[in-house]
Amino acid sequence: MPTITSFEVADVRFPTSLQADGSDAMNKDGDYSATYVTLHTDGTDAAGKELRGYGITFTIGRGNDIVCMAARELAQRLVGRDVNAMVNDMGGTYLSFSEDSQMRWLGPEKGVVHLALSAVMNAAWDLAGRLAGKPVWRLLAEMPPEQLVDIADLRYLSDVLPRERALEILQDAAPTRGERIAQLEAQGYPAYTTAAGWLGYSDEKMVRIIGEQEKLGFTAVKLKVGGSIDDDIRRCRLARETIGPDRPLMIDANQVWDVPTAIDWVGHLAQFDLKWIEEPTSPDDILGHKKIRDAVAPIGVATGEHCHNRVMFKQFLESGAMDYCQVDAGRLASLNEILAVLLLAKHFDVPVCPHAGGVGLCEMVHHASMLDYVAVSGSWDRNITEYVDNLHEHFVNPVKVANGRYQVTGDPGYNTEMFTESIAEFSFPDGTYWAGTRN
Amino acid sequence: MPTITSFEVADVRFPTSLQADGSDAMNKDGDYSATYVTLHTDGTDAAGKELRGYGITFTIGRGNDIVCMAARELAQRLVGRDVNAMVNDMGGTYLSFSEDSQMRWLGPEKGVVHLALSAVMNAAWDLAGRLAGKPVWRLLAEMPPEQLVDIADLRYLSDVLPRERALEILQDAAPTRGERIAQLEAQGYPAYTTAAGWLGYSDEKMVRIIGEQEKLGFTAVKLKVGGSIDDDIRRCRLARETIGPDRPLMIDANQVWDVPTAIDWVGHLAQFDLKWIEEPTSPDDILGHKKIRDAVAPIGVATGEHCHNRVMFKQFLESGAMDYCQVDAGRLASLNEILAVLLLAKHFDVPVCPHAGGVGLCEMVHHASMLDYVAVSGSWDRNITEYVDNLHEHFVNPVKVANGRYQVTGDPGYNTEMFTESIAEFSFPDGTYWAGTRN
Repeated sequence: MPTITSFEVADVRFPTSLQADGSDAMNKDGDYSATYVTLHTDGTDAAGKELRGYGITFTIGRGNDIVCMAARELAQRLVGRDVNAMVNDMGGTYLSFSEDSQMRWLGPEKGVVHLALSAVMNAAWDLAGRLAGKPVWRLLAEMPPEQLVDIADLRYLSDVLPRERALEILQDAAPTRGERIAQLEAQGYPAYTTAAGWLGYSDEKMVRIIGEQEKLGFTAVKLKVGGSIDDDIRRCRLARETIGPDRPLMIDANQVWDVPTAIDWVGHLAQFDLKWIEEPTSPDDILGHKKIRDAVAPIGVATGEHCHNRVMFKQFLESGAMDYCQVDAGRLASLNEILAVLLLAKHFDVPVCPHAGGVGLCEMVHHASMLDYVAVSGSWDRNITEYVDNLHEHFVNPVKVANGRYQVTGDPGYNTEMFTESIAEFSFPDGTYWAGTRN
Repeated sequence: MPTITSFEVADVRFPTSLQADGSDAMNKDGDYSATYVTLHTDGTDAAGKELRGYGITFTIGRGNDIVCMAARELAQRLVGRDVNAMVNDMGGTYLSFSEDSQMRWLGPEKGVVHLALSAVMNAAWDLAGRLAGKPVWRLLAEMPPEQLVDIADLRYLSDVLPRERALEILQDAAPTRGERIAQLEAQGYPAYTTAAGWLGYSDEKMVRIIGEQEKLGFTAVKLKVGGSIDDDIRRCRLARETIGPDRPLMIDANQVWDVPTAIDWVGHLAQFDLKWIEEPTSPDDILGHKKIRDAVAPIGVATGEHCHNRVMFKQFLESGAMDYCQVDAGRLASLNEILAVLLLAKHFDVPVCPHAGGVGLCEMVHHASMLDYVAVSGSWDRNITEYVDNLHEHFVNPVKVANGRYQVTGDPGYNTEMFTESIAEFSFPDGTYWAGTRN
């Protein structure tokens, strides 16, 4: 009967702003960071080591300390819990955090507290996978539909997705799960790369990286836009010439435009046959996204990395404002809320193309995509999951990508464990790296 | 040339959960709390005392420490600023906080960081009013429209409210401002009370308080609902019998229902001739509020106290989901964002009826309502601002209510200064009250 005995929360920050990795029109100088939660237990895993759970939410620097503080307040509530009871009722574990009406006032279900809940529940999911000796996508994808539906946070969704409809979706996919697991194991899950497209990169660097990525099997290319229209026209033309007429080209504005500007700006870039415009405006502007979508079609509108909870996804999906559903494993409050959004997206027939990159997002979202394929949507024809080859070296079990696709690894848990050496070096402000910058 | 020299942030919590004051279906045990920011300067006010600014955001207990931490990170940025330069460009002062793209990731513009920005900017506004020797509503209402429009945060609103339209609204109201200021000074601004309606109160206590409030001139009554339908029917019947057929009766569910439940539940209470149903469901569910509104009309839908920024208000107003616009002076990021919402509400012809109560909200929102009447909507025919007679004794210049209306006080600033004795007693966890509870 193992018990959760203690926890740690580390404020980990990587100095990515030095290389302009991750630079875009809104986020010019992000230091990719993680609120990193470790749950300790008095149990042992299959290898005879201490059973633990590791969870992450992603931020881009300043303020990560605030998320860490919130994560400590939440993680404390898991101390003393029986591990088996917790993992056997992950729906109830998740809901137990919502019982605190005082903390709820700070959102509800958005901002710092929700990011912190994501980190804590991600650690609980990692622990659940390790205890079962399975990747979390498989742990979930092997549950009977009647059990799986109770994992999903369906609160406030019943007007469009009653529990019976959610269950029906899962039941429809259940008989053919095995076929899709076999396909996943043989082929991996479709991915695309943002590696070439950061706004801080020169044209030469962009073209070079597109070529490198093509050799790795990535056929789709995404560019950051929104700094200057002349630059964007030049860069889109260059990228389209480099990849040829048939491969997908996407653009991402990271929220810098208002609605009229988005429509005008994308209009100037439409000549380059774009698959989607990502985050054209405020992530809260559902009706604005719908206006943009109607104006720029057949270019699709993609958004979701800043969509703060399942109720917001319900707005975007029901109103037809979102063509590509970019769930984020650190923004939504763990797989409980992600599963609800996967179900909503299936119900509204919108493909899920998760946001990744950052710190650990690729590691986590490939579980969401595999779960979606096997147990929810049953399709990958329109789906591609983001991949960025950055900071994976800090992970004990990083994702594996080959032929432009996320591969099934079989690692138990959520792939969220980082090396203790990385934590020691990049903890802020007292890790060896940051302490060194003050000398 | 006074300068901002330092700041303090206090975590102030009042043990209101002991009396069930403030109890509702979602928030059963709130300890009304304030993130309380003090800006110090090396200048003096008209009375020869140190010129300071005091700002508040309201929470209900646990987690207030997290908001305080975020407020410290933001307030630090004002230290060293020239006071005159700051108050002469409050639009620019406000926008300077949005330049931090790293912190932006934690929202954007929602949750803990946005609450903290509200507290810090509320302190800046209090300072601006004190420096001018005027209440902040009057400081703003006396600005030329061309200056006032630049106070408003109009980012992401241009598709429905271009700057020219916002300016037009302010210009239309400008010639008759003086008449309305005179009316305000003579009559005060219409208010209603929630004093009788807390869910934790007995029937007898509710009826007694309705009677007491009537003697104070309050004609409208609001009841908390959503615990049990039988209780709600009994309490609404009793309240309606007590106030008679002509006075307004409102109900407030504090987000406890999903959409189908809200429609069904309100249907059972419609017989009591309700003016509005407040917060029937998730504050993020714009389309859900619209469905409820369409189903329960002519009962109006009121929401806004958890509406986290002006972009969300744009959704509610443009989609016709909101009949009464309940801006909150601690949820929105100060008068810069409130003014934008006042302009939106005027554009869509929806009355503004601010949320109040809590700690200091009445003190702040009466400025918003007076500004709206004088300089924006120019009307108070459909407006009533919430009033709760609770915790005002901790304020140096509390609001004054007479004949059921907020009175013009003339106090310079934002009425946000609390007594140092109150801070010393109720600071958490080391104030004398809280230290005493641990003995």
